[in-house]
Amino acid sequence: MAPGDHHAALRTKLIDAAERTIAEKGLAALKARDLAREAGCAVGTIYNVFEHLDELVLCVGSRTLAMLETALGAVRSPDRHGSAEEAATELVQLALAYLDFAAAHTVRWRALFEHRMSEARRLPEWFVEQQHALFAQAERPLAALLPELDQDARRTLAHTLFSAVHGIVALGLEEKLASLPLPELRNQLAATVCAIATGRAELRAVDSRRRPADLPQG
Amino acid sequence: MAPGDHHAALRTKLIDAAERTIAEKGLAALKARDLAREAGCAVGTIYNVFEHLDELVLCVGSRTLAMLETALGAVRSPDRHGSAEEAATELVQLALAYLDFAAAHTVRWRALFEHRMSEARRLPEWFVEQQHALFAQAERPLAALLPELDQDARRTLAHTLFSAVHGIVALGLEEKLASLPLPELRNQLAATVCAIATGRAELRAVDSRRRPADLPQG
Repeated sequence: MAPGDHHAALRTKLIDAAERTIAEKGLAALKARDLAREAGCAVGTIYNVFEHLDELVLCVGSRTLAMLETALGAVRSPDRHGSAEEAATELVQLALAYLDFAAAHTVRWRALFEHRMSEARRLPEWFVEQQHALFAQAERPLAALLPELDQDARRTLAHTLFSAVHGIVALGLEEKLASLPLPELRNQLAATVCAIATGRAELRAVDSRRRPADLPQG
Repeated sequence: MAPGDHHAALRTKLIDAAERTIAEKGLAALKARDLAREAGCAVGTIYNVFEHLDELVLCVGSRTLAMLETALGAVRSPDRHGSAEEAATELVQLALAYLDFAAAHTVRWRALFEHRMSEARRLPEWFVEQQHALFAQAERPLAALLPELDQDARRTLAHTLFSAVHGIVALGLEEKLASLPLPELRNQLAATVCAIATGRAELRAVDSRRRPADLPQG
């Protein structure tokens, strides 16, 4: 095996080991010593293969994002959106797919949001872009729903919608608050996303007739 | 000083010390040894005064909830809601007050949501009730907006709305994701809450004319 192959194989082994721990026990259970033992290398070797432990955690996060992207991608978009109602339905389906993913993979999903870069390091660009690709799945139905938005406004709205959905899912699955049974949580989520889509379309219709200063734009 | 007074005074001292740490440095910085030193007692004494460290953290959380309740309470509700639009405006104001509080007290606010009870202890009832009192601030405008909802449905909706607002605020203030400048975040939040209120009212109007099976209820 060439040295480059060995390096790549060890990298994969370490990501696999970290992924098992994060998916089963969560981020707090991740220890460099355990990873090294599982991958059959010295602790110091981890830092030859990864710049820092954050990079390893982000590689696992990237796998979680890819799984999530597949789950959301399974929501079939119609070839063209005929109506605002179809677009709203697709947004609701995406939100429910997100909830179902979070409910099925709660530990590794939570790790995505718990992780903070240490020592004020910035998130690498490739990871930020992978997140954006995820939000982008909402942009197609949003374009059908609100065709007058430019790309920036649509992207920001997709991010906001994702955040609202995430909040409902995160606090809904949180044992700390009085949490809802999953079917009721699905109803609440669907009703809220449907209301946002309907409300945005309705406010736009109102807005095109009169432009009141007191209705928030954006 | 009677023994009971001493106990109460030490309790307050320990909560004060924990509050300073949590508000300035966050939950992770909280160490029993530092607290004991600040309050001038032995480490073991903390566990005479509090059942466990979780109880102390919840006492600080309770102070944060009280601050938050005051901040939301400053949103003046009209004596009676004349219109759905007035109710929607109040919901938007509550959401913006929540965002402003989180932006001003980010570290202690984040601690509220990061804290997990150890050893699968349940949250005490008094803490759960204080949280509910907070959500209840949205129930009055919701009652004006959707008078047909019974109390349970209104309470659940207030919880869902809070969760959506929390998600937008939490991810919006999160340095990890491409976060928005505060004025833009306020716009996005206001537009979303306004859309939810408008959309709920609109869907109800539609619903009262025809009851389609495909529109989510709840």
